[in-house]
Amino acid sequence: MAPPSPQRRGRGSRKRAREQAVTPRLSTTRYGIKPVEIVSEDQLEKIHQASLGILAKIGIDFRDEVALRQWRDAGADVRGERVHLDGELVESLVALAPERFELTGRGESTRFELGVDTITFCPMHGAPNVRDLNGVRRNSTIEDLRDINKIVQTSPGFHMASGFACEPMDIPVPWRHLHINHSAFVETDLPVFGMVTGEERSLDTLAMAEIVYGKEFLEDNVVMMGHISGNSPLVWDSTMLEGLRVMVENGQGALISPFVLGAANTPADVVATVVQLNAEAIACIAYSQLVRPGAPIIYGQYSVAVSMRSGAPMSGMPEVNLINGIVGQLARRYGVPWRTTASQASAKQFDAQSGYESATSYMAGVTANCNFMMHAGGWDEAGMVHCIAKLAADGEQNLMMAAYAAGVKFDRLDEALDAVARIGPGGHYLGDEFTLKYFEDAFFTPEVLDYEAYENWEIAGSRDMTTRSVEKAKSLLARYEAPTLDESRRQALDEFVERRQTEINPSIA
Amino acid sequence: MAPPSPQRRGRGSRKRAREQAVTPRLSTTRYGIKPVEIVSEDQLEKIHQASLGILAKIGIDFRDEVALRQWRDAGADVRGERVHLDGELVESLVALAPERFELTGRGESTRFELGVDTITFCPMHGAPNVRDLNGVRRNSTIEDLRDINKIVQTSPGFHMASGFACEPMDIPVPWRHLHINHSAFVETDLPVFGMVTGEERSLDTLAMAEIVYGKEFLEDNVVMMGHISGNSPLVWDSTMLEGLRVMVENGQGALISPFVLGAANTPADVVATVVQLNAEAIACIAYSQLVRPGAPIIYGQYSVAVSMRSGAPMSGMPEVNLINGIVGQLARRYGVPWRTTASQASAKQFDAQSGYESATSYMAGVTANCNFMMHAGGWDEAGMVHCIAKLAADGEQNLMMAAYAAGVKFDRLDEALDAVARIGPGGHYLGDEFTLKYFEDAFFTPEVLDYEAYENWEIAGSRDMTTRSVEKAKSLLARYEAPTLDESRRQALDEFVERRQTEINPSIA
Repeated sequence: MAPPSPQRRGRGSRKRAREQAVTPRLSTTRYGIKPVEIVSEDQLEKIHQASLGILAKIGIDFRDEVALRQWRDAGADVRGERVHLDGELVESLVALAPERFELTGRGESTRFELGVDTITFCPMHGAPNVRDLNGVRRNSTIEDLRDINKIVQTSPGFHMASGFACEPMDIPVPWRHLHINHSAFVETDLPVFGMVTGEERSLDTLAMAEIVYGKEFLEDNVVMMGHISGNSPLVWDSTMLEGLRVMVENGQGALISPFVLGAANTPADVVATVVQLNAEAIACIAYSQLVRPGAPIIYGQYSVAVSMRSGAPMSGMPEVNLINGIVGQLARRYGVPWRTTASQASAKQFDAQSGYESATSYMAGVTANCNFMMHAGGWDEAGMVHCIAKLAADGEQNLMMAAYAAGVKFDRLDEALDAVARIGPGGHYLGDEFTLKYFEDAFFTPEVLDYEAYENWEIAGSRDMTTRSVEKAKSLLARYEAPTLDESRRQALDEFVERRQTEINPSIA
Repeated sequence: MAPPSPQRRGRGSRKRAREQAVTPRLSTTRYGIKPVEIVSEDQLEKIHQASLGILAKIGIDFRDEVALRQWRDAGADVRGERVHLDGELVESLVALAPERFELTGRGESTRFELGVDTITFCPMHGAPNVRDLNGVRRNSTIEDLRDINKIVQTSPGFHMASGFACEPMDIPVPWRHLHINHSAFVETDLPVFGMVTGEERSLDTLAMAEIVYGKEFLEDNVVMMGHISGNSPLVWDSTMLEGLRVMVENGQGALISPFVLGAANTPADVVATVVQLNAEAIACIAYSQLVRPGAPIIYGQYSVAVSMRSGAPMSGMPEVNLINGIVGQLARRYGVPWRTTASQASAKQFDAQSGYESATSYMAGVTANCNFMMHAGGWDEAGMVHCIAKLAADGEQNLMMAAYAAGVKFDRLDEALDAVARIGPGGHYLGDEFTLKYFEDAFFTPEVLDYEAYENWEIAGSRDMTTRSVEKAKSLLARYEAPTLDESRRQALDEFVERRQTEINPSIA
C-alpha cells in the first residue's frame, strides 16, 4: 500500500480560490483579556501543596526502566516502579520548562508562538469514526484523514494539524502511524502532532520529520508535538514515556496530559481531582525536564465527568469547566503553557446539543486564558466521531474565539468620540465618515453562522447549520491546493513508508 | 374576551409530579468565581470619564416634560430636551442605587437576592412569533404565552417569569398588556416583568400587582421589574420614562437598558460603543435615583453588531461579548447589578448554530459575573421567535451555568485526599467509600443533553436535541400545577381585566 501521489489541481480552482476573499491563517494570538479565576491565591497554594504531598508520600508509578534509572540518578526515592518525589526536586525541574516556544511548519506564515499569554487552536485527535459529508457515520479511513487535513490546511482557523485527526481503520494497525504522519506532512505544511506510542513508532515519526524538514532544522525548530497521555491515578506508562523521550531529546515538543474520568479514576470531588491530576502532570513535566532541560512542553489534561447512571463520559459539564479553570491557574503559577479541550461535545448528531457543548467548552477555555485548545475542530460523541462538517464550522468558531481572546483596542477611541459628538442624540451612524472608514473590520463577519432574516433564510432554502457546514467543508476542499514539498523529499517520504511497512510486517501487503 | 378560568389538574398528574425526582428551583445564586476582565483599571477609568464627558459636553435628550423639570430642579443644565449633566451630579445619584435587593414572588421559595455578587436567570421577552411544540413557526398567541409561563413555573431553571415572553398577537394591541400581566400573575407565582410602555399601561400593571399582592406588600417588596429601553444614541423617551416612574415610585424595580445596534446607533468601535451606552445607562440610572433615591435598578444593555452586508443584527459576536464584559466592569465600579443577554441566537432553527450562539453568550455572561441573565430561555432568530422547546432546554442550561458560577468547595478535600492515599497509583475509585458517599452530587446530571453511547442512543430512537427538548417541554407542561392564588384576588384580577378592556376600547369586544 503506497501513499497517494500529490494532488494536482486545475487552474480553474486556483482562480476560484483567488477570487474569494481570503481570511489570513491564525498566527500568534495573544490574549488581551484577563482570565476568570476559580480559586483564590491561598486555595491555589493549598492545591499545589497537596499535589506535592501526594508525590512525596504516596508516590507515583513510572512503569519504565529508563525513567526509573533517571529518577534514581536525580536523587528521587525509587522503590520498585514507585517514585517518591521531593517537593523541591519537582519544583526545580518544573521551573526549567519554558514559558513560551515557537512552533513552525514549512509553509508561509505557519510559525507562531505558543506561550503563557497566547492561544493556539488544533483540531481533534483520535476518532475511530467519521460523520462524512453525506451525513453517514462509519469507520474512518485514510481518505477521510486526508480530507480532514486538506480542510485544516485550507481553513484559516487552525494553527496546527492534529495528525491523528481520525483513525484510518482501513490501514493495518502496525502501519497506521506511518500513514497518519505521511498525510499530516504531505497534505499540510503546518506544525503537527506526530505519532508517539512507543519508541519504534516515535522513531519512525522523527525520521519522517527529518525527511521533510532536514535533521538540522529539527534541532533548532519545533515542528511537531507528541501527545503524552497519563494513566490516572498516578501512573505513567512506558509506551508514552518512550514517545516523550524521542520527542524532547530531538528538540520537539510534548503535550503532557493526565486523562481524568472524574469519579472513576479520581475522587468524586472537583478540587481533589485537580490535586491528583496536578500531581500527575507536574511529575511528568518534571521528568521531561530531567530528560532535557528546557524541553518545550504543554501542561495538558483531559477531564470528563463519568455518569454514575450509565458510566458514560460526560464532557462539557460545569465541573469539567471548573477543573480546567483551576488547571489554568496552576499552569500560570508554574509559568508553563496549558491545554484545555474545546469543541467538546457528546452529541450524536451535529445538532443543538453539539453546539451548546462545544461553545461552552470553547468559552470556558478562552475565558480561563488557555494556551492550547485541543480538539478544537470536528469533535462529537465524546471523541468517538470526527464530524467533518463540524470541523469546517469549528474553524470559524476558532476565528471568533481568537477575536474575543484578543480583547479590545483603544487606538480609535478619540476618533470615534468625535463621531459621537458629530452625530449627537437621536442621530444614526450609518453614513458617518467614521463608520465608512472602519465598518469592515469593526465586527467579525461569519460565513457558516447565518444572520439573515427568517424570510430571506427561507427563500434561500432553509438551510440549517449542518447543511451550511457541509457546504463550507466542500468549498474548503475545492479550494485546497497541495502545499509545496520538495520532490526529492516527497519521494524519500513515500519510500520510507514503503520500506518501513515491509520491515514491520511484509505479510500484510 | 375574558381571561381563562384557573386550570384544575387531576390527582393523577399530582402523583406523577411527586414521583419524579424534583430539582429545587434556583434561589439566590452567589458567584464563587472571579470574573474575566476585558480592560485594565486605567482603561476602565478612561471609559467612565469619556462617558461623563459626553453627558457634560454633548448632553442627552430626555424627551419627557416631567423628567426635564426634575432635572432642572436638581440643578442640571437643561436646554430644550437636551440635558447636560455634570459628572459630580451623575456620580452622586448613581451612588444611591443599591448594590443588592430582594425580588419575591408569592410562591414558596420564590424570594431571592439580586445583587452585585449573584446571578439571576429570566427567560426571553418580546417575541412576535413562536416555534411551537410541533416545530411550526407562526405568530404567537395568548395560549402560547400561557404555555411558556407554565413551563417557566414548572422548570427549576428560572428565577423569574418574563411576563412579555411572547406577543399574544391574537389579542388587540390596546388590551395586550392586561393579558400579558394576567398570565404572568396567574400561571406563575414568581417575580415577573410587568408591562411598562407608557403611564396608563404601567398604572394598569401596578393595579394588577396590587390586586395579587396587596398595596402594602408592594411598598416593602419588589415583586416586579419594568424593562426600560433606551433609544440610542443618547435619547430616553417619555413612554419608557413614565413606566420607570410608575415602577420605582411604587417600590418596584427597573431594568435600565440602552439598545445598541453596533455601527448603526453607535460608532463602529467596541470601546466607543461602550462609552456611549454607558453614558446613556448612567444618565438614566441617575434619573431613577432622582425619582426615588435607593430605587432598585439593574444596569442593562442589549448589544448586537449590525451586519454591514445585510443590515441584520448579529448576536453573539465576539465584539458583543467584549462589550458585555466591559459593561460588567463598569457596573462593578458603580456598585450596581448588571444585566447581560444569554441564550442569544440568530439561528432560524433550534440547530447547532442556536446551540453555539446560546452557549457562547451564556458563558460570556457568567464568566464576566453578570448579575441578571436576560433572555435566558427560548431565544432564537435574534429575538423574533420564542422557541418553546429551547425554553425547556435553556432551563437546564441555566442550572448548569449556575453550577459553574458557584465555583468549587474545599470542604471535602481532606476526606478525598484520604481516598487518593487509599486507592494509590493504578487503582480505581468506583467502589471506594468516598465515591459511594458523594457521587450523587459530585457532577451535574443533565436530562435534555444526552450522554449515552452512540449504539444506545440509536436503539432509543436517535432523538436529536430538538426532539428531546420538545419532550422535556411537554413533560414540564404535563407536570404543571396552577400556583395558589386566593379566589377573591383571582376574581378581582379577572374583573379588572374585563373592566379595563371596556374602558380602553369597548368597540373591540
